[in-house]
Amino acid sequence: MALPIAPQSDTCSDAGTEPLMPYPQATALADTLKAIADPTRVRLLDHLASVPGGTVCACHLPGQLGISQPTLSHHLKKLVAAGILTREQRGRWAHYTVVPAALEGVRAFITATEAPSDIPGAPRN
Amino acid sequence: MALPIAPQSDTCSDAGTEPLMPYPQATALADTLKAIADPTRVRLLDHLASVPGGTVCACHLPGQLGISQPTLSHHLKKLVAAGILTREQRGRWAHYTVVPAALEGVRAFITATEAPSDIPGAPRN
Repeated sequence: MALPIAPQSDTCSDAGTEPLMPYPQATALADTLKAIADPTRVRLLDHLASVPGGTVCACHLPGQLGISQPTLSHHLKKLVAAGILTREQRGRWAHYTVVPAALEGVRAFITATEAPSDIPGAPRN
Repeated sequence: MALPIAPQSDTCSDAGTEPLMPYPQATALADTLKAIADPTRVRLLDHLASVPGGTVCACHLPGQLGISQPTLSHHLKKLVAAGILTREQRGRWAHYTVVPAALEGVRAFITATEAPSDIPGAPRN
């Protein structure tokens, strides 16, 4: 008597052959993502990217964001600590500037994830 | 007697004129970023993007990631809940597939942040 053949639906797809992303690289990406995964920080970054040179004076920010100065300071510190903004004191006021290359790793990761391999018309970048 | 002129270093840069990103949009982006801001989930997404069609059987994942099945299930659930992966049961095994469009908003946000306006050679996308 022949052995039963497993139905097609009970088979699983092949495992991928590409090596996993190294854990330190994944941790670094996760840390950067955590630093920007906040609505106020998303708005701050979006705003800074829209102004000339990517630089804005801290004095203009609280009113626009509807948050207090201490809350703003907390969020700016997080972004500076993550290397996503730089802080420069000009007289009385701190100015913050986007570091364009800081999110390069995240951008490459997101772009690759958007275009899985072997789907026609969606080449992996 | 003339009034003293404030030194250049004590002036602040202009405020941007662009309206802030609407808060609901910033919250949605932050939620998606939070869903992927974890080393294991970064590795999962990167791995899925590397396999044909962006689909992988859950049976192949724990060994590759060096995590237990319950831990894997936790991370996969988070990604499915965020709409970044879909889950399909094929017989005994669940298969997970990347949703290419799920990270489109994050990609556009990161790309804009990388290229602040009015910097020569770095046009805003």
